[in-house]
Amino acid sequence: MRFKSTTTSDGVCEQDFTLDGIPGVLWSPAGAAARGPWERRSLERRPLVLLGHGGGQDKKGPGVVARAHRLVTACGFAAAAIDMPGFGDRPKTGQDERFLAGIAELRAAGKPVADLILRHNVALAERAVPDWQATLDALLDAGVGGPVGYWGVSLGTMIGVPLAAAEPRIGAAVFGLAGGHDTLTEAAARVAIPVEFLLQWDDELVPRAYGLALFDAFASAEKTLHANPGRHQEIPEFELDSSQRFLARHLGG
Amino acid sequence: MRFKSTTTSDGVCEQDFTLDGIPGVLWSPAGAAARGPWERRSLERRPLVLLGHGGGQDKKGPGVVARAHRLVTACGFAAAAIDMPGFGDRPKTGQDERFLAGIAELRAAGKPVADLILRHNVALAERAVPDWQATLDALLDAGVGGPVGYWGVSLGTMIGVPLAAAEPRIGAAVFGLAGGHDTLTEAAARVAIPVEFLLQWDDELVPRAYGLALFDAFASAEKTLHANPGRHQEIPEFELDSSQRFLARHLGG
Repeated sequence: MRFKSTTTSDGVCEQDFTLDGIPGVLWSPAGAAARGPWERRSLERRPLVLLGHGGGQDKKGPGVVARAHRLVTACGFAAAAIDMPGFGDRPKTGQDERFLAGIAELRAAGKPVADLILRHNVALAERAVPDWQATLDALLDAGVGGPVGYWGVSLGTMIGVPLAAAEPRIGAAVFGLAGGHDTLTEAAARVAIPVEFLLQWDDELVPRAYGLALFDAFASAEKTLHANPGRHQEIPEFELDSSQRFLARHLGG
Repeated sequence: MRFKSTTTSDGVCEQDFTLDGIPGVLWSPAGAAARGPWERRSLERRPLVLLGHGGGQDKKGPGVVARAHRLVTACGFAAAAIDMPGFGDRPKTGQDERFLAGIAELRAAGKPVADLILRHNVALAERAVPDWQATLDALLDAGVGGPVGYWGVSLGTMIGVPLAAAEPRIGAAVFGLAGGHDTLTEAAARVAIPVEFLLQWDDELVPRAYGLALFDAFASAEKTLHANPGRHQEIPEFELDSSQRFLARHLGG
């Protein structure tokens, strides 16, 4: 893991890194309380939240950065994001190009795109889970992170659920805005950590029944479904406060 | 409205009252911040939460008292509860007696009781809504209450939803653990205030689909469904924190 430029603003230290071609970013509290993510003693017991970006976004999408800043300043946590395969600064494979061409074709024909996105995202998860695990290994090796959590909806859930099923170091997760694929449901049945699940009642991409069924599938003794009116992108602000409290309750701090 | 005995413990002033044969109780902050509910100036702008008790309980059921204490001590609110017709210190009518006999009969025969409870509670709401409205009139006349909220699940929702539909002074409500009757659904469609709705995913009395349909029916632009694993009586503690924050957000304080 190679750390690159560091910038600090509003009490948040933001540090870019790369790991075997995976570009990522680490946010942590700036100042005396945490002199930098490279100083083992300052971050090794600090909760770390992995932030999974949504489709069409990347590691520094506005939502990702906003959540990272809140986790750092309100909870004193560290947070990390990486570009998913084919997003942000990562090269697109032939598979990614064919997917984008397929989407453009369906849109031009006025046909629904949800099924193609769903199938592509399931395939994407197979490539992304090992990336997240390697990143987590490297961050822990670098002395970042005590308890580990995950926050990601939509594409972030399509990837986050199989990640949480495969990765015992993740202790709590915020998911949502996804469902409707057996691979995902089967992965959810192997997830037993506390989960807060966000569902948009008028989601134009994910049918309500898909989200309810995915929530139902988690094996977690503690799982909480929060559903609100509005479309896919319209998660209310108070749910972001709630998911932050949820992570603080389960990761400590 | 006749105020009776007053007791004070843990910073909470508890005062029994009766109003035309309806026994009730008012909780308010004790001490310098609020010298007593009878002093107009101390309570007139303080948010007031009406607490609807569940079936088989009454105005001083353990859950009601616990919620009242939290609203008073954590939010500085006032809270009030009354016995629903046929509960607590109120006489049972022939209708109530026939209901109880019917329940006993079904139980003895090992038959399900949910439908009978549902029908009885819908009828009960017709008697209880005017009681709540008279109580609210009298409390406001006595100088208690600024913004008004409602908290009640199960029977408390069967009565609270038609109350909120009829009573424009109620500005936010916590409901849940109910559904499955057209009268209730129709009342919900006339409720447009912010609602937090609690659903127990494994509710043995209220089928999941009934609760989801009732949540769906509210006309509110802001409504939020919180669903958790567990049976009818097993609402997790963190949801009580959440509903308190919800009421604080909408009623102020």
